[in-house]
Amino acid sequence: MNRELKSCETTDSFACEDYKEKEPKMCELDQSKTYKGLVGIYVDESTITYIDGLKGELYYRGYPLHDLVDNSSFEEVAYLLIYGKLPSKSEFEAFNDELIKERNIHDNILTILKSYPRNTTRIELLRTSVSALSLYDPDDYDFSEEANIRKGIRIIAKIPTVLAFSHRIQSNLPLIEPSEDLSHACNYYYMMTGEVPNNEFTRYFDKILICHMDHSINSSTFSCRVTVSTLSDMYSGITSAIGTLRGPLHGGANERVINSMLGEVKKIENVTPWAKSKLENKEKIMGFGHRVYKTWDPRAKILRDIARELWNNPEIVEKIPDLQHEEHKGDIDNIFEMTEILTDFMIKTKNIYPNVDLYSAGALHALGIPTALFTPLFAASRSAGWVAHAIEQLSDNKLIRPRLRYVGDLDKNYIGIEKR
Amino acid sequence: MNRELKSCETTDSFACEDYKEKEPKMCELDQSKTYKGLVGIYVDESTITYIDGLKGELYYRGYPLHDLVDNSSFEEVAYLLIYGKLPSKSEFEAFNDELIKERNIHDNILTILKSYPRNTTRIELLRTSVSALSLYDPDDYDFSEEANIRKGIRIIAKIPTVLAFSHRIQSNLPLIEPSEDLSHACNYYYMMTGEVPNNEFTRYFDKILICHMDHSINSSTFSCRVTVSTLSDMYSGITSAIGTLRGPLHGGANERVINSMLGEVKKIENVTPWAKSKLENKEKIMGFGHRVYKTWDPRAKILRDIARELWNNPEIVEKIPDLQHEEHKGDIDNIFEMTEILTDFMIKTKNIYPNVDLYSAGALHALGIPTALFTPLFAASRSAGWVAHAIEQLSDNKLIRPRLRYVGDLDKNYIGIEKR
Repeated sequence: MNRELKSCETTDSFACEDYKEKEPKMCELDQSKTYKGLVGIYVDESTITYIDGLKGELYYRGYPLHDLVDNSSFEEVAYLLIYGKLPSKSEFEAFNDELIKERNIHDNILTILKSYPRNTTRIELLRTSVSALSLYDPDDYDFSEEANIRKGIRIIAKIPTVLAFSHRIQSNLPLIEPSEDLSHACNYYYMMTGEVPNNEFTRYFDKILICHMDHSINSSTFSCRVTVSTLSDMYSGITSAIGTLRGPLHGGANERVINSMLGEVKKIENVTPWAKSKLENKEKIMGFGHRVYKTWDPRAKILRDIARELWNNPEIVEKIPDLQHEEHKGDIDNIFEMTEILTDFMIKTKNIYPNVDLYSAGALHALGIPTALFTPLFAASRSAGWVAHAIEQLSDNKLIRPRLRYVGDLDKNYIGIEKR
Repeated sequence: MNRELKSCETTDSFACEDYKEKEPKMCELDQSKTYKGLVGIYVDESTITYIDGLKGELYYRGYPLHDLVDNSSFEEVAYLLIYGKLPSKSEFEAFNDELIKERNIHDNILTILKSYPRNTTRIELLRTSVSALSLYDPDDYDFSEEANIRKGIRIIAKIPTVLAFSHRIQSNLPLIEPSEDLSHACNYYYMMTGEVPNNEFTRYFDKILICHMDHSINSSTFSCRVTVSTLSDMYSGITSAIGTLRGPLHGGANERVINSMLGEVKKIENVTPWAKSKLENKEKIMGFGHRVYKTWDPRAKILRDIARELWNNPEIVEKIPDLQHEEHKGDIDNIFEMTEILTDFMIKTKNIYPNVDLYSAGALHALGIPTALFTPLFAASRSAGWVAHAIEQLSDNKLIRPRLRYVGDLDKNYIGIEKR
């Protein structure tokens, strides 16, 4: 555990060679201010992902997202995020072999998955299962960077298996063992449906995964970095991230988009009255606005193109194996057209742009993915980013431990319970 | 889920009545600075715990810690932390009844606990088990404050059961069901050992728990608040906190203290040469220094008194049931005396004071607690603080989503793998 020696403090305690905490100078930091939500506060430097919120641009390791979506695959982008460079052919093959080899999960994890109650969310199952995976990791007591990368690859490889198994258990379907011949995206879909999707489908699915793989220090990634900053382990970091992603203000948002469309809007002519009524009642419309982007979210642009192609080419969608997709069967208008009308309305009346959630919802729905799988699928994709951030955090670690401003009373007198 | 409506943003997206992020004005925040580790950054206001790092004072809800240690109990302080006030007699009885009623865990959790491999850390088992508990929570789909408090009470009540069961499973001992007649601290020890400790022992154990119940926004508490700030659930928040506590820069520190004493120092005459050598090699000495305290940590003072009493009154320690305490059996000098010499040396040569970990290690060791249980025991105690902080965060939530400063290259050209 040699990395530990590089880090200077502990959280309830700290200890370093000179044992003196280097507080920022007062000229650098106004300690009378409270930075609620940490809006605009830079917590570290990074070489993973760059977001230009004004221009609406997104880069993974310096490569524009759209180039990676057009040319790369989940596996290659995972390598890029973790190692900081595109792999050579032999590096890619070794990495890919490792990902394939690690798709299986321990029998005890499967037993646990089967024991879970059926009415829980998939993301709770995933959070619990990833935490349990650590108990079976052969590197459990090795905290070196090499071991952390191995753990990270295992987590990325096993999450689709956990999700597909729990999907089929909850749907009372027989389990499908991971294939050793299919790509990451293709195998994931295969394990869920039992059918190998065609190349066209797989390409769309892969593109959607790539769009979600990292987004700098969003809340789930931040919780992962806070967790490993105590020099805790990779599984603890990813478990924190999954639990954080669960919230409707984060990974839960795209599920909300589709639920609004399917449950409340339903028809094209209802979109504008529905949106007006929401705004008048100061209710939220999910899928719009972003803390960083002040224009089109570049992921939303890419996913909008995908959603448009899918919705306007029903022959692609019709070829999709039925994934218990009962939501499709209702009397609902073209979701892409509804989303377009909503986008137009929001930009014109509020100057607010769609974010990643709006069009990922439409694209995933077109691909036949049940809504309950949206957030877990987001986790499967983002896991690569979480692993990269955990490794970056540990490569130059400083314990993340802020302050809270106490605003309560002090020096209260303890009075025995009989006299209260 | 009405609380959601109060909160303005999502993390990959945000949405509120006017959809405009309120960035701090530039005069308030120098955006060219990077606040690595968030040292000295106030992330929110709080009425839970006040730390005066210069005077070395600590207050829970305005009550000095030492008054609570002298007069109160784990249960009463848990009520105080969660509800913000000391309970009346009837409030206390209702709260205590609820804690006792919730001590049991679902049979499936027990089955899972039994299936875990034996060579894992207790804190990994706890992280996984608390995550799994959410699957069986009757309020799983209720996110109201009342439901969150019920979930919090369940977590606080069940953690000792999970820890005691996993301790006895790993030690090949028969399980002991929770008692409905014993206090929280007393029942915890009873479930671990099968023996009801005497009142004197229970008082010491309770005092140690009280000292660890909250400490403002340490890293584990911070990760809990980050997690619930996406409006994720209480179990996700506490699971993040447990994973974060695991790290040796946080909850893992007191285990390190005792391992140094038992494994390296052993004899009183070795203390000073060992410490000198550590400092010369720029190695860390665990149990000293703190990011907030610049003097004696008040918890260290209280725990030092407890450790002194226990080590100087072997008749108390001798009455303790044997908790597989093989560490006691070696030829080791009085640990309290060794700690005192180390403290004296560190203050004189480095002007660095002991923190909570140094003396909690000595006190817990004197009480016969095996080292492997130190961090889990810290979690059992701190769970009350985590619950209080999750509820406070959600009562006036703002998504915690900072920035990372990108320092890598941009606009790299994607080159196909064949040409790399």
